[in-house]
Amino acid sequence: MAESSQHVVVLGGGFAGLSAVQTLKSAPVRITLVDRQNHHLFQPLLYQVATAGLAAPYIAQPLRHILSKQSNVTTVMDEAVSIDPASNSVTLSRGRILEYDHLIVALGVKTGYFGNTEWEKYASGLKSLDEATRLRRRILLAYERAETIRDTAKWARLLSFVVVGGGPTGVETAGAVAELSRRVLANDFRRIDPTLTHIHLVEAGPRLLPMFSESQSEYTRKRLTKMGVTVHLNAPVKEVGANHVVAGDLRIESANIIWAAGVEGNPIMKGVPGISLERSGRVEVEPDLTLPGFPNAFVAGDLASLVDTKGVKVPCVAPAASQMGRHAARQILRSIKSKETKPYTYLDKGSMATIGRSSAVTSVAGIRTRGWIAWAMWLLIHLLFLMGFRNKMGVFWHWVWSYFTWNRGARIITGLDSEEFTLDNPEPIPRTQRTGS
Amino acid sequence: MAESSQHVVVLGGGFAGLSAVQTLKSAPVRITLVDRQNHHLFQPLLYQVATAGLAAPYIAQPLRHILSKQSNVTTVMDEAVSIDPASNSVTLSRGRILEYDHLIVALGVKTGYFGNTEWEKYASGLKSLDEATRLRRRILLAYERAETIRDTAKWARLLSFVVVGGGPTGVETAGAVAELSRRVLANDFRRIDPTLTHIHLVEAGPRLLPMFSESQSEYTRKRLTKMGVTVHLNAPVKEVGANHVVAGDLRIESANIIWAAGVEGNPIMKGVPGISLERSGRVEVEPDLTLPGFPNAFVAGDLASLVDTKGVKVPCVAPAASQMGRHAARQILRSIKSKETKPYTYLDKGSMATIGRSSAVTSVAGIRTRGWIAWAMWLLIHLLFLMGFRNKMGVFWHWVWSYFTWNRGARIITGLDSEEFTLDNPEPIPRTQRTGS
Repeated sequence: MAESSQHVVVLGGGFAGLSAVQTLKSAPVRITLVDRQNHHLFQPLLYQVATAGLAAPYIAQPLRHILSKQSNVTTVMDEAVSIDPASNSVTLSRGRILEYDHLIVALGVKTGYFGNTEWEKYASGLKSLDEATRLRRRILLAYERAETIRDTAKWARLLSFVVVGGGPTGVETAGAVAELSRRVLANDFRRIDPTLTHIHLVEAGPRLLPMFSESQSEYTRKRLTKMGVTVHLNAPVKEVGANHVVAGDLRIESANIIWAAGVEGNPIMKGVPGISLERSGRVEVEPDLTLPGFPNAFVAGDLASLVDTKGVKVPCVAPAASQMGRHAARQILRSIKSKETKPYTYLDKGSMATIGRSSAVTSVAGIRTRGWIAWAMWLLIHLLFLMGFRNKMGVFWHWVWSYFTWNRGARIITGLDSEEFTLDNPEPIPRTQRTGS
Repeated sequence: MAESSQHVVVLGGGFAGLSAVQTLKSAPVRITLVDRQNHHLFQPLLYQVATAGLAAPYIAQPLRHILSKQSNVTTVMDEAVSIDPASNSVTLSRGRILEYDHLIVALGVKTGYFGNTEWEKYASGLKSLDEATRLRRRILLAYERAETIRDTAKWARLLSFVVVGGGPTGVETAGAVAELSRRVLANDFRRIDPTLTHIHLVEAGPRLLPMFSESQSEYTRKRLTKMGVTVHLNAPVKEVGANHVVAGDLRIESANIIWAAGVEGNPIMKGVPGISLERSGRVEVEPDLTLPGFPNAFVAGDLASLVDTKGVKVPCVAPAASQMGRHAARQILRSIKSKETKPYTYLDKGSMATIGRSSAVTSVAGIRTRGWIAWAMWLLIHLLFLMGFRNKMGVFWHWVWSYFTWNRGARIITGLDSEEFTLDNPEPIPRTQRTGS
């Protein structure tokens, strides 16, 4: 059979790539899935790892395990370094070449700093598991450092957090840091009072969560304020340093800058001739998600930039990524059968964002909710979507327990052997007054 | 009150240090607990983190959290760099000096290579959380690498594991790697067959688990053999390289060398004048656990070397460490009341070691068990001892689930941004035959 030899290469095992592979489960194709990580990551809960709410393995499942029963797929842990759609080939990091009949590029986006690459070393991103565990280490170390110093200015900077970006990730992270400082860590220190932590949420636009209604944005702002977060609107970030941020006309002294503002497309696409990239590096695709001129090369997920058939700009959210991955896989099946491809239309299943304990906003099929009902919906939906039975039950149990005790079990600092600890302690503590009796 | 001003410094928040601090809960003293990590680690289950059975936060609890309600203790996340018992002071890494009235050194031991420091870079130790997550990364990456290469010799080395040391940690780790390869990963790869993994357990002495009876040692050897582990007795390690081990007369080609053979005392003690160290760096203490000549300076836990009042050489196990910490704290209370100190006597509560699923050996109060009853006892005791309710229930749930499904949820590779990934991929894979159709 000619069909059985067709080779589909999928780059990236996120929501788009994984849903593409799974859509091809019974198809007469050979699939090679390439990902530089060995796991699929449930990104919507990454902020929980960064704020010590969940252990990393709760939100990650090995790709091989998810796909172990799908015999037409081979998973390769490697990184694609170049794509040549003219010769139908992809080169991996160690020189290996994959030739394909059909390609799906689902490499997603990474933290982007609007071209200010020097900001990266001061402002921690929140797009990968490694970024999240690094951020957890930095947050927890800030309190440890503050506990040991007496210099008031340094102390104030260490207990000041700036979250840049008022989208769902920024809102969720600011809320989680507020809860961490106000409740979880409240009694754990002797010299500092973590409840005095300043948390700033900085947003360039006129309101938080612009994908929601204005009243929901306002509700979110009020809730966050009540939780102890100072919200700054119309405050685009102009400068980021080791110990400060300039946003709008405001200068905030802070040793803890969390970046939830921008993303950029995988740089691999810059090397592909003849395609158009947005300023953020996302790829402008044809209505059927193919690369212009290459009907066998699809881009799916956050990396694809598209205004769909209904005139909707497809958002960078997990459901859209899954839909695009499925769509691309289906078009491959159609083209194998020599049928014409169809354009992709985004099916908006609604939006939800959590603000904190018992507090969220949702907008589903035109129905808007907020408060604890919205939070319960958010919880339920996220549990249902989490992959793998253990993860669901583990996370569920963990959340029930955390809800009643305000404890967070993942509050450990790891990776101190790396350069990070030195980096986080740039100024040695001077020989202080002796503490003996 | 003169008493209320006495300052007790405890170095190390492991079993010994933590039990010392907790024993002083209601005592009229000020306590400073110093640890370079922010967490207490349940070391007996560290091998489970290394073999992807448990997520790291399951077996670690923040020290501040454990002690948040004990108001007479201040926890400092820092490292002691020198101890001067003559001036009753300890210097921390950033120059800060702590003066004490009473000192408990409970710094434990770290992985030791019998003086062969160059072995360290090839043979991964298993004493800290960072070592365990590094080992997990190496084990999982070995399979990922084997999946992508075609060179038979390299392939064989990657699927060969050598565990050095036939004590409980070595036995448990070898058993866990066997289960990982034979069951957990069995169906996850396409080109390699993880069930063909060679696992070698190498022990210098004539039997495994020398603290148990000979018949239990023999049972352990047979069980491990049945599980797919090749046990080499009377095979002291003479050489460790990047891809091989020489043990006795045997040379084993392996890219995965796990070191569970030796420990050595914290090097800080080398700088203390007038004390005697064992060859391994453990400190020879007086019968009451004090340093010779310094009745206000105690050493407790694995770092202390002592033959107790009954002539028993106190073993390096968690119960002994807890007992010693408690004993030292009580002697401090006695000396505050101007009473003489008492010598420490080890109370042997028994030994247990798990071999694998449904298989363990125990020896409690002269009663020896093995098989699944021993395993159930091991499971129960470890759950009871694990600190923190969430951890207990989380681990319990996880184990029940793992038992029935043979799954391991913590099978994720993190920290690839570090140097490790490059280190683990020293040989680039040559441009292979094209895999396209």
